[in-house]
This record gives sequence, structure tokens and C-alpha cells, in this order.
Amino acid sequence: MATIISPWSSELVADYERLMKVFGVEPLNGLLNRFPRLNRYLRRGIAFGHRGLNVVLDAIEQGKEYAVLSGIKPAGEFHLGSKITAEQIIFFQSLSPRSKTFYCIADIEAWEDNGQPLKKSAEYAIDNVADLLALGIDYKRTYFYFQSREPRVMRRAAVFARGISIDTMTAIYGKQHIGMYLSALIQVADILLPQHEDFGGPKPTVVPVGIDQDPHIRFTRDLARKYKNMYGFIEPAAVYHKLHRSLLGEKKMSKRDPMSCITLNDDPELAAKKVMRAYTGGRETAELQRKLGGQPGKCVVFELLAYHLIEDDKELQRIYDACTSGALLCGECKRRAAELMANMLKEHQRKKQKFLDLARSIVEEALTRTV
Amino acid sequence: MATIISPWSSELVADYERLMKVFGVEPLNGLLNRFPRLNRYLRRGIAFGHRGLNVVLDAIEQGKEYAVLSGIKPAGEFHLGSKITAEQIIFFQSLSPRSKTFYCIADIEAWEDNGQPLKKSAEYAIDNVADLLALGIDYKRTYFYFQSREPRVMRRAAVFARGISIDTMTAIYGKQHIGMYLSALIQVADILLPQHEDFGGPKPTVVPVGIDQDPHIRFTRDLARKYKNMYGFIEPAAVYHKLHRSLLGEKKMSKRDPMSCITLNDDPELAAKKVMRAYTGGRETAELQRKLGGQPGKCVVFELLAYHLIEDDKELQRIYDACTSGALLCGECKRRAAELMANMLKEHQRKKQKFLDLARSIVEEALTRTV
Repeated sequence: MATIISPWSSELVADYERLMKVFGVEPLNGLLNRFPRLNRYLRRGIAFGHRGLNVVLDAIEQGKEYAVLSGIKPAGEFHLGSKITAEQIIFFQSLSPRSKTFYCIADIEAWEDNGQPLKKSAEYAIDNVADLLALGIDYKRTYFYFQSREPRVMRRAAVFARGISIDTMTAIYGKQHIGMYLSALIQVADILLPQHEDFGGPKPTVVPVGIDQDPHIRFTRDLARKYKNMYGFIEPAAVYHKLHRSLLGEKKMSKRDPMSCITLNDDPELAAKKVMRAYTGGRETAELQRKLGGQPGKCVVFELLAYHLIEDDKELQRIYDACTSGALLCGECKRRAAELMANMLKEHQRKKQKFLDLARSIVEEALTRTV
Repeated sequence: MATIISPWSSELVADYERLMKVFGVEPLNGLLNRFPRLNRYLRRGIAFGHRGLNVVLDAIEQGKEYAVLSGIKPAGEFHLGSKITAEQIIFFQSLSPRSKTFYCIADIEAWEDNGQPLKKSAEYAIDNVADLLALGIDYKRTYFYFQSREPRVMRRAAVFARGISIDTMTAIYGKQHIGMYLSALIQVADILLPQHEDFGGPKPTVVPVGIDQDPHIRFTRDLARKYKNMYGFIEPAAVYHKLHRSLLGEKKMSKRDPMSCITLNDDPELAAKKVMRAYTGGRETAELQRKLGGQPGKCVVFELLAYHLIEDDKELQRIYDACTSGALLCGECKRRAAELMANMLKEHQRKKQKFLDLARSIVEEALTRTV
């Protein structure tokens, strides 16, 4: 598989090690001891790489202010991949009372990339924000905004556009229509918004994102250096997580293929069925599996357990061992994962229900805000 | 000379007739009888072409609402070329009490094209707005705005960017950096701003501009058609005037070459000296000129008289005849033009002085407005 990382591709990046070497992403391993605590994604290497995270860890250690920013295209319901980003935002927010969180509702990107009208994005945003609330975001310390309703972002995108050649954009993003390039510049401005004077000026910032967003991060760090004299920017840091595979084991999880994807709104029974049909690392026959053991490294069901369903590391290890030893067969394992998935969704949806009104008022405020 | 029209070129377009044919600009002649009255520029063919003006003339005849919009890069003081655009805006505003005027302070363009910081544009804008007031704009019926402070414009530019290929942009504007393409899209959104629902929705609009702006107009009309279903746009019309030549007879007037350019802030005595040095259509010797006559068609001094200094058509004709017959020599003619120029500037600057406070408050309001 090619080592092209693109935010708009649905290809899965297979070889994260090689990718880190080629693009200069730093492994996260060496920094884990600097965190006040870890979450499931960091402990398990699901969040595996970073750029420039030391400045953020310094701020956390020294009790200084830092920003956490990420955004998700409001192009539909959150799926399990969006959930990783959401939980990473919430994790970094929770590491210090001095964090300031920014959640970008990427409605311009949804328009440029998917042709989704801004009004439609506003509808989906309510559902997405309710997910964030149910997942535990501290909304009182979070600035939720729409790209299209944030003139500070649009203005800075226009500033950054000066002098950027077509060749530069093509080298980073491939040949795209102008809207995609503008969308990229807007994302640069998004990532630097926490450093705007209206938000207290330059500060360390961490952007938790899937590794496919690395081009935006590199581009942002380049522009932060270019405009350091004008705005005093501190280069934003990023923490990268792996891309969630589709339930069929190929490509990254995407709503474009509903049966391969579980959304946070999925009917729990349907989601359980999807798990039962998921791609595993099982052998051709039960006999062969008892002999050779399963292959959890290839198995999407194991991925679901590790990413979402089993919090206890020892329990996860037990499943891993039982699988590789041939003691645990796929049918049994899938049934357990399916049940856990159904329960997780039930519980999430129960919580989320209570947050819908709050989500609606947050979105309403963001849509009518004048700055 | 090539018939490329580009808003960012300083080449003079020599052959307006040919240009109209090649690019499909309509001659204004046939429509002059539909105007309730004419100004100097229209009477003398200085404003010579249009696109789609019938819908605006219909609105004027029927007492219906229409918009007048233009903008000038706030990259310094107004010169005699900016004065044409300013007076054309004011003329179209004055044709009916139902006109709504929009004056765009093109600070994003000044940044993209000239690298001029937005703050600097805000300073120049005060001076420019004072010129508009002194020239007679009805400020109570004018919406003055900065591109960078008008989120409705920035948002629409992002909407229009979708699906526009690099090849399309290169075909219209040549190979430029991304900022210039964004600037072009912002100008499209500027021209369509009067049709925004916040300003009462779709309406006929006339954009009085130099012919070098035709690419923006064509691009805007294309996009108005493309988004007709979404926004109900009426294709904006344009009225084109000739480009003001530099005092040295070459290229268009530009502040990049101060001695070839008269600004509205020029010291009247200095301006008079510039006129005395201007390029004329005079012959090599006085004797030859008495015999062959002068060549007002080549003469920048005659251009100054026709564009700015002689309101009475009969008087202008007398000068023309005296010149071509050989009776009027360049020295005498220049002295008269120099005196008229000094007087015009004195009178303008006297008026302008009184409008500076008002200009300051208009700009302040535009900078702090939240929408």
C-alpha cells in the first residue's frame, strides 16, 4: 500500500511505522511517562504518534494554559472513528483545569468535499454535539463554532492564502478544486484560532486527529512559522491516532458504506448484527483455528474490543491470549463483542437523549453569535 | 498590444472596439437614450461598454429597487483613475431614489495583490471615503464595508469555490498564487452581496468599473447563473469605462509611478507641474503644429480636459477644433489644463477636509460592525 497520507482518501494506512519514518511523525512511546495519566488509546498505541507535543506537556506540567482543538465534518452521525477523535479531545481537555477547548464544526469542509449545504451541517451538528456531551466534554470550557460563522477563521485563511502557489497545494493535497484548497487554508486558520488575540493570544495547542490529517498539521506548522513575526504563533502540536478500519477489514470506516460502519445512533440490535458479520482473523475451519490460533492483529472484532469495548488491559490480554492459543473461537468472541457493542450504544444513547436540548442551544448560539 | 484584459495588469488596453468584439462586451451607445440623464463619462464615450445593463435601466424606468456596487483597493490615495470609478458609482446612485449603494473597501485584495496589511488598508480607507463624500456620494444610502469584515462575503466566496478547477482559474486569471484566486472569488461574492437576503434578496445590480475588471464580471455572471437555483440571483450588470492613461501616455495610471499620476491629495501646485510635463499630441515644432494641427486623440492633456476639467461639451469641442486646426499650441493648452487641475484639486481638498470626521466614523463603524 502506498504511503500517501491524505485527509480525503478512504484508504487505510497500513504501515504506521514506515509512515512515521517517511513523514517525520514522532512516536508517542517516549512521551507517555510525561502524561499525568493515560487513556485506552494512548496505553494501547492506538494513539501512536505526534508532532511537537512537548510544549503542551510542558504547559500541563507547569499548570499553564494550553488549547485543545479538533473538529469533525458534520456530514452525518458520528461513527466509531469520530468517537476516537471526540474522546481524544475530551481526554486532553481533562488533563488540566487550564485547558481551553475548541470544537470546530467543519461545515465549509463538508460543503467543499461533499457538497453538503451549510444548513444541513447545522442540523447534523446538533446530533454531533450531543454525542460530545454524552461522551463527557466539559462544554462550559469549550468553544463550539462553525467554520462558516467564524470570521476570524475566514479572514486568517485569506491572509494565509497570499503567496501559496498552486504547486505547493498540489504537492500537499494533490490536484483538487479551489474549494478544497480553500478548505485546507481554513483548517489551518481553525488550528490557529486558539492563538487569536481574542482568545488570549499565543499558547501551546494540541490537535488530536487521525493520522490522515497530518498534511493539514504540517501545513499549519509551516504557516505558523511563516507568520510568527506577525502573530507570535507557537507551532501547534498534534497527536495522531490510527484510522478505524471498516467492519469489513478494508479501508477506513466511513459512512459511505453503512453496513461496514457503526454509528453512535445505530440501533443497538442492528449494530450487534454488524459485529457478527465483521471481518475477523479467524482460520478457515474451527479445527485449524484450535491448532494455529486466531490472528487478533488482522481481526476487526479484536479492534472493536481494544478501541471501544474492553477498558481493562488485563482482560484484553486474556482475550488476546485465548484467541492466539486457539482456545477462543470467533463465534463466541463475536457474540461477546456484539453484546458489549449493543450495551455501549444503549448506554450512550440513553445519556445522549438528555443532552439534546443543551446541544440544540449550543448550536443555536454558535449559529447566531456575532463576533 | 495583446487583448488580454486582466485586473492585475498595468498595461493599457489600446483597442477598445476590438476588445468589445473579442470578449462580447456590448457598446453603451445604443442604451444612452434610456438613461434619465447622462454624465460627462457617458456623453463622451469614456464609459463605453456594458454587460446586461438593460435590467438596471428597466428598474430605473419602473421606479424599482436596484443596487450599485463597486469597490476600490485601499492601497493608497485615490488618483484620477479611482475618481472615475467613484464618480460613476455616485452617478448611478443618483439616478433614482430607489438605488441602494454598496462600497467595497477591497482590503483582502490589497493584501493578496500588494501584501498590504489589513490595518494599513483601514487607514487609507478613511482618506478614500472622505474623497467619495467630497465627490458627492449619498452616504446615508450607502453600505460601506471591508471585505475582511463582511462574513457574508467570505462565506459565499467559500461556497463559490467548490468545484472551480485550477484550470478554470488559470484560464481566467493566468497562473497566480492561491490568494489571488481567493481574492477573485471574494470579489464575486462582493458583487453578489446586494442580493443577499439580509439586503432584501435578488435585485438588479450595476457595477461601474474599469474595463480591466471584466474578468471578475464574467466570472461573477457565470457563478450567478450556477447558483441561481440556490440563491435566486439576477446576473449583475456592469458598465465599463476606459482606463486612465498615465501622464506619460503609457500604461494605465498607477501610484506605482508617482510622477505619472495625480492623486486627489496632490499639492495643487505639484499637480499643475505634472500636467505641464504630461505627454501631448503635439508636433515636433510649433511651426509644424500650426501647419498640421495637434493630435488630441493621442494627448493626455486633452484626456485630462475631457475626463475631468471641462464640463461643457461645446467648450471641449472648441478646444478640440482649435487644437486640430493648429490654432492652439500645447504650451497654452497645458497652462490652462494645469490651472484647471490645480483649481479642481483645491476645491476638492477644501470640501474633503470637512468630511474627514464623517469618513473616520463611517470606517470605524465598518470595522467594528458585527453581522
